[in-house]
Amino acid sequence: MDLCRTHAETLDAEDPLAAFRARFAGAGEDGLLYLDGNSLGRMPRETPAALARVVEDEWARGLVGSWASWIGAATRLGDRLAAGVLGAGPGEVLVGDSTSVNLYKLLVAGVDARPGRDVLVCCADDFPTDRYIVAGVAAARGMTVREVPADIDEGLDADVLAAALDERVAVVVLSAVAYRSGALADIAALTRAARDVGALVLWDLSHAAGAVPVDLAAAGADLAVGCTYKYLGGGPGAPAFLYVRRELQERLRQPIWGWFGQRDQFAMGPEYDPVPGVERFGVGTPPVLAMAAVEVGAGLVAEAGIGRLAAKGRALGQLTVALADAWLAPHGVALASPRDPARRGSHVTLAHPQAWQLTQALVDRGVVPDFRTPDRVRLGPAPLYTRFVDVWDAMDRFRAVLAEGAHERYPTERARVT
Amino acid sequence: MDLCRTHAETLDAEDPLAAFRARFAGAGEDGLLYLDGNSLGRMPRETPAALARVVEDEWARGLVGSWASWIGAATRLGDRLAAGVLGAGPGEVLVGDSTSVNLYKLLVAGVDARPGRDVLVCCADDFPTDRYIVAGVAAARGMTVREVPADIDEGLDADVLAAALDERVAVVVLSAVAYRSGALADIAALTRAARDVGALVLWDLSHAAGAVPVDLAAAGADLAVGCTYKYLGGGPGAPAFLYVRRELQERLRQPIWGWFGQRDQFAMGPEYDPVPGVERFGVGTPPVLAMAAVEVGAGLVAEAGIGRLAAKGRALGQLTVALADAWLAPHGVALASPRDPARRGSHVTLAHPQAWQLTQALVDRGVVPDFRTPDRVRLGPAPLYTRFVDVWDAMDRFRAVLAEGAHERYPTERARVT
Repeated sequence: MDLCRTHAETLDAEDPLAAFRARFAGAGEDGLLYLDGNSLGRMPRETPAALARVVEDEWARGLVGSWASWIGAATRLGDRLAAGVLGAGPGEVLVGDSTSVNLYKLLVAGVDARPGRDVLVCCADDFPTDRYIVAGVAAARGMTVREVPADIDEGLDADVLAAALDERVAVVVLSAVAYRSGALADIAALTRAARDVGALVLWDLSHAAGAVPVDLAAAGADLAVGCTYKYLGGGPGAPAFLYVRRELQERLRQPIWGWFGQRDQFAMGPEYDPVPGVERFGVGTPPVLAMAAVEVGAGLVAEAGIGRLAAKGRALGQLTVALADAWLAPHGVALASPRDPARRGSHVTLAHPQAWQLTQALVDRGVVPDFRTPDRVRLGPAPLYTRFVDVWDAMDRFRAVLAEGAHERYPTERARVT
Repeated sequence: MDLCRTHAETLDAEDPLAAFRARFAGAGEDGLLYLDGNSLGRMPRETPAALARVVEDEWARGLVGSWASWIGAATRLGDRLAAGVLGAGPGEVLVGDSTSVNLYKLLVAGVDARPGRDVLVCCADDFPTDRYIVAGVAAARGMTVREVPADIDEGLDADVLAAALDERVAVVVLSAVAYRSGALADIAALTRAARDVGALVLWDLSHAAGAVPVDLAAAGADLAVGCTYKYLGGGPGAPAFLYVRRELQERLRQPIWGWFGQRDQFAMGPEYDPVPGVERFGVGTPPVLAMAAVEVGAGLVAEAGIGRLAAKGRALGQLTVALADAWLAPHGVALASPRDPARRGSHVTLAHPQAWQLTQALVDRGVVPDFRTPDRVRLGPAPLYTRFVDVWDAMDRFRAVLAEGAHERYPTERARVT
């Protein structure tokens, strides 16, 4: 690959998504090389107006009357995500609660749908909340957890997973894109492998939604959850989504019997009687204000098209890897993501023993990566607003930090937040 | 009581909280007699600016760096609610999730803290989500639910509750202010009664918070949850709060083991190890945008002072009851709330066989009450922005509707929303 900056400029000039950059606040103005769109996406410029509309028109003026529209907001937004981002059908996706709460609801529903089975499977290198939720459900239900080892660089191997599957397994919890390495799982193949032993797979799409094509229908996926504040641009703490394949919905019942899952909810009847559709996986009053922000961000992803986003994401990743090989490897930085771009999501992870010090030095030079324990620097260019020259400039500063040893003067220990 | 409009005008002239009205959008401008502040409070005028600040300054400009502040937002806001609204101490209240999810978490935590007990108690006339959550936990745990009958007008009788309590009871779920009648429970007395048999009480404060003094510390309350979109003005679907008495926190463990309950969460360690404090009852990423709106609304309540708000709420209620007696009772409208203002929250409920038709007719005349099945009209003046003349005018229109029979031409059946 041509490693000159002019090559990156050429890629930008040919980028069919280049115009989207202007639709995000700060991009091109704040001077930041923001490579943390996989943690918290930048704010779409339309978001403040969308929030003002929901608060000033719908809430302040419409008052309780606006519930006539809000009552369907969680499924309307779910349908948009289904069609534009997730490859699911209408009535299969619901927005609300956090990823963790949704994971809990669907995990318990899945366990209850597989009576007599006493094993949960998850990946030892999966995101903490996924592993903790699995552990909590297993503890409550007297089940055993099989933690499948994953290569922390290359991700989960299908054969390794297969070895953990048998007819004791009720539910398998997996991430479509590994939070640490960015390794991309084959949703269809792993879902089939689990189904062969009668188990359900509950997919966490947090690092995949908006970054790679996730065709839940084609993959025959049963259950999924995911967050909306990364590539989907919903803002800090934005509500999550959940997906349940239509044919499964009536057979599943989630454990938190809230009134937003209730049939004819305003009859306020004596018994819990969940609606047949995906709303049965809802619980409390949906987060109306926060959903307005998700709608904007998810709308931009759908408008750009997940195919084009994923293609640009791969290209950004390839440039990152090529520059890391050429400039950073001589300083002891190793690639900690799959080398094959077809096996990666949209972020690239690098390993170095002084990763935390490097992260701090990069931030001080206007590059925003993401540190992950113990020794990883994640670089998450977001195809909607990250340019190829941004990646080039970031890697150029990265090599300068290493060459100068500028990171050495930063603290080696990260302050504990709690 | 003097029933002339001039008397209502005098009460407004003497109202120490009168200036707060101007701080809510629409109040005095939209011509609405909005008596549904107990369902969805009006929007504080400061809310759009607060939201703009969090999205444009903190999100768009601060990006992930803002997590240094956001990480503590759920407990900071919780501490403000604790001090200004709930009579609790610092580190006892956490904001996040929905009321229903919080109820579930604390209910399961309570059940686990009372091993060997197999009964849950709730009130047969409690809000649906409370009853359904109790039913769901009982079903999952093989427990029995004792639904204590309540007089739907007068609320729960302490002796009736006492009769349902014995050493089989793990947790009692009760509302501090009944959603239908507005009946006010004696938190301290009922908590003691449950404690006498070794049971915990989990209080739902949704209709109480911001309307009546809720002194959780003085009452010795163990567990509570509540919503912030009614009197606390947090907006549609605003995140809820939960309270756990400090001495209980380390002994309780909630069932949804999310990463925001984890000690040193960014170490992303292998095992779930909850923090000692109230954060252990958190789950996923806190709803940062939505919390900014709660902060504004709850701030106004704290500024006005719960004592003054409750006093005005009682006075508004007394005027409502006096006018209902004089003007509506002759048309067959009956009071369906406790007559004693000391036994009521801030809303007054009326019963009439054509309640749904009356509600529709009132809305068409600019009065916004709230219909509740089967035959109730709730009138929820909000002491922060409802004037005494608003109540007078609303009741005047109410009697005109009845006198003219204007409600007769409206549908008798409410459309099913789902």
